[in-house]
Amino acid sequence: MTMLVRAPFPRISANLAERACIRLERALGPSKVLTAPSRCAAYASDESEQEAAPPDAVVLAACAQDIATTLEVANALGVPVCGGIALCTLGMNSIVEIDRDEFIAVVEPGVILGDLYAAVEAEGLFYPPDPNSWALCALGGNIAENAAGPRAFKYGVTRDYVLGLDVISAAGSRLQLGRRTAKGVTGYDLTALMVGSEGTLALTVGATLRLRRKPQQVATLLGLFATVAGAARAVSAIVAAGLVPRCLELIDRAALQAMRRQGVALDGRAGALLLMEVDGDVAACERQLEEVGARAVDAGALEVLVAQDAAQRERLWAARRQLSHVTAKLARYKISEDVVVPRTRMVDLVDEVMRIGERNEVHMLNYGHAGDGNLHVNLLWDEPADAARIEQALEELFRAVIAMKGTLSGEHGIGTSKARYLPLEQSAKLIAVQRDVKRVFDPNGILNPGKIFPRRGHGAC
Amino acid sequence: MTMLVRAPFPRISANLAERACIRLERALGPSKVLTAPSRCAAYASDESEQEAAPPDAVVLAACAQDIATTLEVANALGVPVCGGIALCTLGMNSIVEIDRDEFIAVVEPGVILGDLYAAVEAEGLFYPPDPNSWALCALGGNIAENAAGPRAFKYGVTRDYVLGLDVISAAGSRLQLGRRTAKGVTGYDLTALMVGSEGTLALTVGATLRLRRKPQQVATLLGLFATVAGAARAVSAIVAAGLVPRCLELIDRAALQAMRRQGVALDGRAGALLLMEVDGDVAACERQLEEVGARAVDAGALEVLVAQDAAQRERLWAARRQLSHVTAKLARYKISEDVVVPRTRMVDLVDEVMRIGERNEVHMLNYGHAGDGNLHVNLLWDEPADAARIEQALEELFRAVIAMKGTLSGEHGIGTSKARYLPLEQSAKLIAVQRDVKRVFDPNGILNPGKIFPRRGHGAC
Repeated sequence: MTMLVRAPFPRISANLAERACIRLERALGPSKVLTAPSRCAAYASDESEQEAAPPDAVVLAACAQDIATTLEVANALGVPVCGGIALCTLGMNSIVEIDRDEFIAVVEPGVILGDLYAAVEAEGLFYPPDPNSWALCALGGNIAENAAGPRAFKYGVTRDYVLGLDVISAAGSRLQLGRRTAKGVTGYDLTALMVGSEGTLALTVGATLRLRRKPQQVATLLGLFATVAGAARAVSAIVAAGLVPRCLELIDRAALQAMRRQGVALDGRAGALLLMEVDGDVAACERQLEEVGARAVDAGALEVLVAQDAAQRERLWAARRQLSHVTAKLARYKISEDVVVPRTRMVDLVDEVMRIGERNEVHMLNYGHAGDGNLHVNLLWDEPADAARIEQALEELFRAVIAMKGTLSGEHGIGTSKARYLPLEQSAKLIAVQRDVKRVFDPNGILNPGKIFPRRGHGAC
Repeated sequence: MTMLVRAPFPRISANLAERACIRLERALGPSKVLTAPSRCAAYASDESEQEAAPPDAVVLAACAQDIATTLEVANALGVPVCGGIALCTLGMNSIVEIDRDEFIAVVEPGVILGDLYAAVEAEGLFYPPDPNSWALCALGGNIAENAAGPRAFKYGVTRDYVLGLDVISAAGSRLQLGRRTAKGVTGYDLTALMVGSEGTLALTVGATLRLRRKPQQVATLLGLFATVAGAARAVSAIVAAGLVPRCLELIDRAALQAMRRQGVALDGRAGALLLMEVDGDVAACERQLEEVGARAVDAGALEVLVAQDAAQRERLWAARRQLSHVTAKLARYKISEDVVVPRTRMVDLVDEVMRIGERNEVHMLNYGHAGDGNLHVNLLWDEPADAARIEQALEELFRAVIAMKGTLSGEHGIGTSKARYLPLEQSAKLIAVQRDVKRVFDPNGILNPGKIFPRRGHGAC
């Protein structure tokens, strides 16, 4: 699929794989274990451009005990989970409880985020984190990645909504972390340590989530600007005025071009687009709508459109959500990066991306969460031979981001593909101490080896 | 001072203490090291009823290097920090930076919270966490304890405002944790692990804090109710209506009695008081004031008073802040507990506290953060011989809280005095894994030994 193979999962021998399959089938029953290569192939890749890595076995866990058993086999044989054994928790998809009075939901890890939305909204409640993939992604993954989305500007990220976790550590210990109450400082905050740990420490078998009351009303605005600098001025003016829209999404000139090529009609003068959304009770929503719109006009917007109804709102957001697919069609290969800089450096970052693209002859375009300074920088290419130039552009991007006091990832995590760049942001001492923390939970290194931390000799610096 | 000595810090031998003093004086210079018992005595106790434990030496750190040097000596000799050596960071009290555009402050650990308030408010900004002791407490301690206060109901706790930390681990590693950006998922969330770790893992030498824009207006209401159940009904109605006052403080009948005895004039029929505060822009503040007041009246308030100006507001809050001192005057000894239950169980908890008090003949009174379900249960007694009954009442309280799916501490932490009760809430496996995490940062166990985790054979169950 691609030439950008940076840190493939370590493979295990055929003999070991066979022993693992036999043990798993015996312990779990054959209906819960896939071993045929044709069936395992479906679990070989994710949405990244990483090389496909078919697992030797896939466990379809139906309960916490299945996960515990899988980890027992993995520890006994030293077979990695993810790599050797893929563990699928989509079968554990029960919404165990929704407590309207306490604003709490208790869920299993395989619950699809969109299903949680539907269930809590039926009770007049609201779960804010909104990764683009909400129709498909499961809460276990959201928690592992500390997922976020456009609404993070007002409402925060997944970590802000996880009160407690029921986990099984890689070593096999079932641990009840955190709490069910609004506050709590009993012991170390291991809940927060788990959220965003990318499945390297433990597996979630249950989560207690904080909910909010569903906002009475939502309104969406679209602002077109001649330049990204103009859009950024609007964002600064909105924030400085103390307004807190729930979303402040930026799309740059190159990304707008991609949308035009796919048939979206846009003012030809527009070099940047801001998608803004406000919510609250009816009065607050109206007031914010006016004030946010006025700031956009003052900052020199070419045009500000207000969605008049739910259908128009949905059309605006569908265009934003389609961006990922639209841009993927522009070239054979695409990497969508996820860097963050202090909000006031967004314009500098977009300028820098343009320079990096020109210097390395790489087609780059940007969109992302302007309120948070979180930019999805997309690199596009057609020829496998271009991989070296892509690598060069990526490294220049990451170095620029760190120089602006930014961070390598806002919501996607480090995974295997960015592990080698971790030393650009974090000291050797800090990486070492995190490895030590991993060893507390995963002494045999069976959970997602190769994720987050660079393998020795693979660091970029 | 008291008979409730549950887990005193381990003492070191006179010989070892002398060697530690000599090494510290040599390394830091005598002006930074107090060794005279008369001077060390001032660092022997805190606000708890724990037995005074004068340190053998006090280091007055002026910079990160002083802290690193102290830890080096402590590790070399195996002398605990806090216990053997007390480390005072009040000299590191610089507000390094306030960034108005990014809503960020960078501070040293000795900055007094009240000084930070003044500095950021002068820039039109706002730092929400508000422990009662804000005029005296330092940010290093706030971070170590994950401090909170009345405003947590709307604005969250210290952890929600710490973006990044500059720490020196007990082992002596200087680590830059977290970030300066709004979002970030690079590596494990060690920042959250440090916040609330009660000084058992590392020492903070700098912190990057998130700020908010200062609310335009604040309004305070006082509601008097015949019973706690009536006040709790008002809280439920306010929350169910989607209103988010920044404070919802409850004072129960026995605590009101204490206030009356100190000369505060209160309607004789009142058996509970709610202190409520709303903020926002002028229009939002007015609207919330009306709606919150209406909910209180509907729930059967005897009286709802609105503070008409800043002086009246301050008087209402001064009465609330004085509660801690007022109640301390009622008896020779006082323990102020800090339990949390799901918000809807507050009435049950207050009832249970009354029953526990009657059963054990202990004078108990309650006040706390009703919006968060965080109740400060106060136990008062005069005779040292009553200690056994106090212990019994405490254990019954903690068991009742856990049975209500609550937690032992909302904002004060576990410390030494509640360490033996930790097994009521957390499994042996969970405590063991936290000890392992501590060992990663503090292999020699020099930082606050005896805090959080029960010593072997000292658990309550």
